[in-house]
Amino acid sequence: MTALLIGNNRAAEMAGGPDGSTPDERRRAARGAQRLLWWARDGDVLLLPEAPDDAFADHVTGLTGTRRATLTVVTAALPPTGTLPDATVAAVRAALAGRTVDRVLPVYADTGVTDLVRRLGAERALPGWAFHAQGGSALVNSKAAFRAVAAGTGTPVAAGAVAGTPDAAGAAAAELLAAGHSAVLKVAFHSGGLGNEVLTTDPAVRPLGAHRAVVLPGPDAAREHTARHWSGLSSGGRHPVVVERYHPESVPVYAEFEIGDAGVVLSGHGEMLMDPMLDGETVPAALPPDLLDRLVGDGRRLCEAYHALGYRGTLSADAIVTPAGELLFTEANGRLTGSSHLHSVLAARLVGEPLRSRRVFLEKGAWRVPSFGAALDALERAGLAFDPATRTGVVLVGDRVPVDGTVVPCVIAPDRPAAHAVRRSLPALAAEPASAPAS
Amino acid sequence: MTALLIGNNRAAEMAGGPDGSTPDERRRAARGAQRLLWWARDGDVLLLPEAPDDAFADHVTGLTGTRRATLTVVTAALPPTGTLPDATVAAVRAALAGRTVDRVLPVYADTGVTDLVRRLGAERALPGWAFHAQGGSALVNSKAAFRAVAAGTGTPVAAGAVAGTPDAAGAAAAELLAAGHSAVLKVAFHSGGLGNEVLTTDPAVRPLGAHRAVVLPGPDAAREHTARHWSGLSSGGRHPVVVERYHPESVPVYAEFEIGDAGVVLSGHGEMLMDPMLDGETVPAALPPDLLDRLVGDGRRLCEAYHALGYRGTLSADAIVTPAGELLFTEANGRLTGSSHLHSVLAARLVGEPLRSRRVFLEKGAWRVPSFGAALDALERAGLAFDPATRTGVVLVGDRVPVDGTVVPCVIAPDRPAAHAVRRSLPALAAEPASAPAS
Repeated sequence: MTALLIGNNRAAEMAGGPDGSTPDERRRAARGAQRLLWWARDGDVLLLPEAPDDAFADHVTGLTGTRRATLTVVTAALPPTGTLPDATVAAVRAALAGRTVDRVLPVYADTGVTDLVRRLGAERALPGWAFHAQGGSALVNSKAAFRAVAAGTGTPVAAGAVAGTPDAAGAAAAELLAAGHSAVLKVAFHSGGLGNEVLTTDPAVRPLGAHRAVVLPGPDAAREHTARHWSGLSSGGRHPVVVERYHPESVPVYAEFEIGDAGVVLSGHGEMLMDPMLDGETVPAALPPDLLDRLVGDGRRLCEAYHALGYRGTLSADAIVTPAGELLFTEANGRLTGSSHLHSVLAARLVGEPLRSRRVFLEKGAWRVPSFGAALDALERAGLAFDPATRTGVVLVGDRVPVDGTVVPCVIAPDRPAAHAVRRSLPALAAEPASAPAS
Repeated sequence: MTALLIGNNRAAEMAGGPDGSTPDERRRAARGAQRLLWWARDGDVLLLPEAPDDAFADHVTGLTGTRRATLTVVTAALPPTGTLPDATVAAVRAALAGRTVDRVLPVYADTGVTDLVRRLGAERALPGWAFHAQGGSALVNSKAAFRAVAAGTGTPVAAGAVAGTPDAAGAAAAELLAAGHSAVLKVAFHSGGLGNEVLTTDPAVRPLGAHRAVVLPGPDAAREHTARHWSGLSSGGRHPVVVERYHPESVPVYAEFEIGDAGVVLSGHGEMLMDPMLDGETVPAALPPDLLDRLVGDGRRLCEAYHALGYRGTLSADAIVTPAGELLFTEANGRLTGSSHLHSVLAARLVGEPLRSRRVFLEKGAWRVPSFGAALDALERAGLAFDPATRTGVVLVGDRVPVDGTVVPCVIAPDRPAAHAVRRSLPALAAEPASAPAS
């Protein structure tokens, strides 16, 4: 049983188009892609833009019980679009050393991935290969397509429109402002709220899940703004733009599913922390039972529509809970998300089934540390390292030390207050001198 | 029971983008839109770019049994995109004269239609209104989305790819030519094969269902051609391009369905006549039983995927039968098609259930006539006018006399040879002087 894990988290459809990233952003993405290590099992091959450092790899595999020495990491650039060079395919083939690929797990199953899989003769190892090979991933990640599918399946969404022209987008935004609401404009393909901007007449409105709020005098200005920024909003005219009523101070939540041939299985749900951009999350989402039922039930129905199309893989149905208590779905993401490791690995494998429902996972912000090893030592000394006996403690899910001197901690605790208390204690820990050299 | 029939057959998503039509093309489209008269029942309101002439309207309603005097025709420009002016909405409202709209039947349910429907407060009268209001029609008409859905549902398609970049399209076309095949490049949104072109190294290859065949020396030239024409192929970079193996001398067939809340119902199937562009069709498709079963069965499965998304309305699953006897699906069209009247009206209502399966419908080419009335007279004199007693004869399904001096005849006969014999006899009939003045 050999899996090929592909860390292509810079796929163009995740970022709205051609590669506009800076070297620093690419480096951050490369470190983020290393999270795939959490899924690795004995004998797997990882294709990553940058190899994980030993300390991180040891930490992850130590917790998952994977024998690190059995893993092979192939490093290669994984550009946002296009097919991979022969040398990369050859390197993967060499790493496989004649073994059959039984499973392919990419971050994003675009045609770059399906082409690689085809060249490896591993089509059957990627669920939904045929769908993805014909560009299907766009259908399950476009925010524009999402609104149609949501409307078509009776999934509640914010009032709004999918606009193919600046006129239509401007009219929709103006209508919302004229009705006394704020509007959010969404680029069809983007992630983490980076493609969203809020238009509002109210300077007090905070742009949660959007990169900015633009304060405008009124509807006409919204029309002008939309026309002026149309090229960026539509990714150079390539995609329609979503215009929705923006509900200030809503709580973003999601339910994540695995869509397989046999059907749709809930992986878990969570609640995003926005400050004002995405800053982490807590799992599970703490919602009243009726809202939680609808989050999971409506999310599942959405998944069933994507299942009918032929999509296979992870799907996150994202929603907000408005201050009025309305549950409104905002987008769907058919890919490994920034939450997938929490459900598929930390909850399912590190904590495991009997205790999972009695644990809270808090992954919030970055923790500045002298080194990855120093962070682990500090956790050990404080008695906060993840303890397989109690199934509580801190796990370091990401290693960004070479980029910005931080690691990404996830606190696993019996409840939210305990998790937050541990999280708050971390900065002080790292201030202590590391007792061991950085590994 | 009042229906609103909307003749918007110039919707941008049917033609690949903004309005590039000439006045002559617009006039032709306007005459084509008059075919909606076939669906009209007592009391209905028709919104058309051009009112039908009396002779045509009398012919149609005489055959369908609709009392023509109960119909109201509102004429207004129906542009390819955008919302309709207030004056048009007011005119429709005036024509309704307070009656509730129970059913809306557009040619194409784009957001121009859903906006009109909303302003009339008739959302519940348009099946799938919510889906269409969020741009859903694009999902069921894009040739690119089709390939993903077909692959995802196990529907057989020609080898090929959905290409988001000139490089990807060029590589796919070059690969096909290098393998000794021809390729067809398809614009994502277009109709009647007008957005398709064949690339081939063989000058003998005829472009059936494509506007031209480009003879090239080899794969590299295919790459260059694709790059050079990328802007047109991608509608100015707005949509991906489909690149498929082209199977010369294949027979185009289709199965058409009605997708309703309750499920998917077959309307009928047919066989297109290409000469080399679409020149008409015969109903039913004359295929061996196993191929026909697959056409209908695979077409239905495709419909079920679109049904799951929330699409409601007519859906035509188009396919080809290759000379090798392979059935390969080529596109899906979620709209009233050029065939819909044959199934929904001529077969279902003029011929009716008991005899329908024992009749052949042949609609092939245009018939040059002095006037619509003269054509009817000629048919009467020759004993070829449709006879409700025998459920055979010629029906004039379209009136293009003011545009190009032709009508569109459909021959209904017991079998194909009889239908073709009648069709061949028509030009000679029209050569006779008309006995009555043009109505």
